[in-house]
Amino acid sequence: MTKPMFITLEGCEGVGKTSNMEFIKSMLQENNINFIETREPGGTPLGESLRAMLLGEDFKGMSDDTELMLMFAARAEHVAQVIKPALEKGQWVLCDRFTDATYAYQGGGRQLDIKRIEGLENWVLGDLRPDLTLLLDAPISVGRERAGKRSTPDRFEQEMDGFFNRVRDTYLNRAKADANRMKVVDASGDLLAVQNQIREIIKGFM
Amino acid sequence: MTKPMFITLEGCEGVGKTSNMEFIKSMLQENNINFIETREPGGTPLGESLRAMLLGEDFKGMSDDTELMLMFAARAEHVAQVIKPALEKGQWVLCDRFTDATYAYQGGGRQLDIKRIEGLENWVLGDLRPDLTLLLDAPISVGRERAGKRSTPDRFEQEMDGFFNRVRDTYLNRAKADANRMKVVDASGDLLAVQNQIREIIKGFM
Repeated sequence: MTKPMFITLEGCEGVGKTSNMEFIKSMLQENNINFIETREPGGTPLGESLRAMLLGEDFKGMSDDTELMLMFAARAEHVAQVIKPALEKGQWVLCDRFTDATYAYQGGGRQLDIKRIEGLENWVLGDLRPDLTLLLDAPISVGRERAGKRSTPDRFEQEMDGFFNRVRDTYLNRAKADANRMKVVDASGDLLAVQNQIREIIKGFM
Repeated sequence: MTKPMFITLEGCEGVGKTSNMEFIKSMLQENNINFIETREPGGTPLGESLRAMLLGEDFKGMSDDTELMLMFAARAEHVAQVIKPALEKGQWVLCDRFTDATYAYQGGGRQLDIKRIEGLENWVLGDLRPDLTLLLDAPISVGRERAGKRSTPDRFEQEMDGFFNRVRDTYLNRAKADANRMKVVDASGDLLAVQNQIREIIKGFM
């Protein structure tokens, strides 16, 4: 049995993660690869409850440290109950978002301390890391247009653009720093062009 | 203004933490010390919710790592919202249980990895530690008798005694290793004898 692979899919809103996840699944199925599909945040009942606490109104004044701890608590449960057991059984794991998203959204977007994120990543994951990460990348304006919004952003949208540009830049910088694991897919073109890139990457990987 | 002190009270079940906490509070009041009283687990609304998740039936199969993460998430919130703000305002903080309890109950009792606990302690607390910890100590049998149970333990109680003896030993070993901060109070005698010891320790400390 070849080593089962842990693949994650990352990217900002509007880059087409959902349809491309379906495409990756169909590729794995065509190649008779036994895999599970999962996602973050969430992935376990406890993770879903923590997600509700993170997103809800009840605790929205929580400290930055607490927020990071809860995100990584959900991840600890996800790793222990879902990801590691699957890999140990020889199943590939296909995960919609993982730790890179914490770096991008909390570290880049919300500007929480990257060193703090690294500390928890090492504590929770030990030496577990994705074998392959596909980063679907497109300019923020493309995502906004796809989501059907007008192209001249108002003040709130401009602020959000600042946030999402930091998220995107963090993703791209991580891909540059870890190019063997993290492959950038140009997601600004049409779906077929995007799928062709993904196919080449995954074929090279199998 | 003298530096405000962070005092924690620790000990197993049945050692008289509640009545001695009242005694310490009255001592601080007599000395016109401005203080707050708080407790773990809990101390914040978010901490109470996490406590319910930790103790309830819904998630009782959670992994050891997840359990530690949630305990320290509650502590991160407690430190950020309650303990640090009070100390910064010059108030003393009197806390019923803190990180020593995690070492004693999760590390000693449940035998989770001490190094894992240390990693999260350092991440969450940085260099914040209690200035003084009072460890109320008594043989496990004394606690059981005080709780009104018969003195010949059944099999389940014997198992629980094993657990609580590990908790007690861990507390005592920590006190030995950090004798400047952590003072052992012999809690096996009557309340007056215990209070005399506490009075001497706190007087020496003020």
